[in-house]
Amino acid sequence: MAVTDHPAPLAALLDGTLLGPGEPLLRPDDLGVLRGEGVFETTLVVDGEPRDLEEHLARLTVSAELIAMTVPAPAEWRRGVRAVVRAWTGDREMVLRLVASRGPESAGGPVCYVLGAAISPRSVRQRTRGVRVLLLDRGFSAAAAHAAPWLLAGAKTLSYGVNMAALRYAADHDADDVIFVGTDGGVLEAPTSTVVLARGRTLFTPPTQGILDGITVRRLFRAAAGVGWATGAQRLTGEELLAADGVWLVSSARLLAPVTAVDGKQLVGNSPATSALAGGSLTAQLAELLDVPVPVAGDDG
Amino acid sequence: MAVTDHPAPLAALLDGTLLGPGEPLLRPDDLGVLRGEGVFETTLVVDGEPRDLEEHLARLTVSAELIAMTVPAPAEWRRGVRAVVRAWTGDREMVLRLVASRGPESAGGPVCYVLGAAISPRSVRQRTRGVRVLLLDRGFSAAAAHAAPWLLAGAKTLSYGVNMAALRYAADHDADDVIFVGTDGGVLEAPTSTVVLARGRTLFTPPTQGILDGITVRRLFRAAAGVGWATGAQRLTGEELLAADGVWLVSSARLLAPVTAVDGKQLVGNSPATSALAGGSLTAQLAELLDVPVPVAGDDG
Repeated sequence: MAVTDHPAPLAALLDGTLLGPGEPLLRPDDLGVLRGEGVFETTLVVDGEPRDLEEHLARLTVSAELIAMTVPAPAEWRRGVRAVVRAWTGDREMVLRLVASRGPESAGGPVCYVLGAAISPRSVRQRTRGVRVLLLDRGFSAAAAHAAPWLLAGAKTLSYGVNMAALRYAADHDADDVIFVGTDGGVLEAPTSTVVLARGRTLFTPPTQGILDGITVRRLFRAAAGVGWATGAQRLTGEELLAADGVWLVSSARLLAPVTAVDGKQLVGNSPATSALAGGSLTAQLAELLDVPVPVAGDDG
Repeated sequence: MAVTDHPAPLAALLDGTLLGPGEPLLRPDDLGVLRGEGVFETTLVVDGEPRDLEEHLARLTVSAELIAMTVPAPAEWRRGVRAVVRAWTGDREMVLRLVASRGPESAGGPVCYVLGAAISPRSVRQRTRGVRVLLLDRGFSAAAAHAAPWLLAGAKTLSYGVNMAALRYAADHDADDVIFVGTDGGVLEAPTSTVVLARGRTLFTPPTQGILDGITVRRLFRAAAGVGWATGAQRLTGEELLAADGVWLVSSARLLAPVTAVDGKQLVGNSPATSALAGGSLTAQLAELLDVPVPVAGDDG
């Protein structure tokens, strides 16, 4: 999780103005930075087409409402998105971020912008090689979070410090990612993705109470239902992850990362050998449902 | 908690350079804004003298370590502080903030700066009129937070969204502030201050496990010990707050705010009548120990 130097992302304001590389935008008293007060969304652009943009804009609005903030209408965001997509000269895939900070303490109004950047080679690798995860206590249960709206458990806010700290903790303990578990033992979500589990021909994900409603999981479940999978939201435990036919972390940019180990215990269904996209594995089947771009041979970062 | 227009704060980089009013500083991909990744401190400057600056700089370094970040040495911060203090032309009191953001994703290194602003009239009023608080569930217990370092419970990070949401929740429910309570019923802290309780001639504060170590409480306890108070850290419950001879929220800028009601129940020891600084109340005694600047009559914002 160390900061590594890579090219500055493309950045555009909602009126379509592109910022210069490295050009500062936010004032030092912006509440987005001073207090982590703001909301964001991430999605993938493939061949110039942003995925599920309407759903991401809808969720951005919901997150904003949860922190008593009003963000511009979807049409205004689309203008900024178009500017970044048009200016992009990189690979087929671009990670698109929509950011709304509450703005300077000293002058009203959110600061909204769109970022476009290359997908990290690490994310691309994890689509095929998978991730070893740790189960970490999130400190609350889904029910408790739902009953305590000030905990902002269902909002995608700029206060992502705990999520980042959990990922660093994993990296320091020989793991790649984290699955948060509630104090009641219920699986919640990963710091930047949603948990999906396969048992027979059914895909499960935890109920959205107390966690973020995963847009890419909805996309996956729609596609899976179309080819005969049953899908459902259900309380899951750490033991059920280990006993599953497969577990994945699903998100908008990395898309689908098979979980190969939980707390150091190998997940047989997702062992590195069977999780390769080339195989006829469950991961390959689900990746096809999500139209995961197939990496060019040798393009391994 | 709505954003209200007020003058832009003074802002200086650590080399002493002052930013122009409204001049942007942070890039759009700064991890301080995108992820709430960074740390801060707040203290009060009275008549040009920053209070407890060494202790705040020490705590800033500890917070940074908890998120695997390195911040400049105290001597470098002091240069930025001096620049802001020298440029200040406002009232006797200035609120000083030290901010270290992790910096742009695309180029290494934290972005560090110092802000100086007037203390809000609301904070000044609350020193004498007190605050009505709600007890809100923080989602975890002190022990659980201590055992889960990724929850960052003892770090003062830029991911303050939950704290701000709790204050908004209070404002929406006819209260001024919040005291967070752990899932085990133990009093933790307030979103931007530390809880202190008086029982007889003893002042108590919750143990620092799982909460921020309050610098102004330490100052208060040192001064109180000098005039015959006993002081100690002890697990406290909501019931004990209601039964206390006085309860205060102690912080670096507002200093001392007497709690006048908890969940709508009046606290007799801190009723508005007895909490006025002019009276011989406990609040007046403690305020004197903290050298709370006495407001000029009529200077009520």
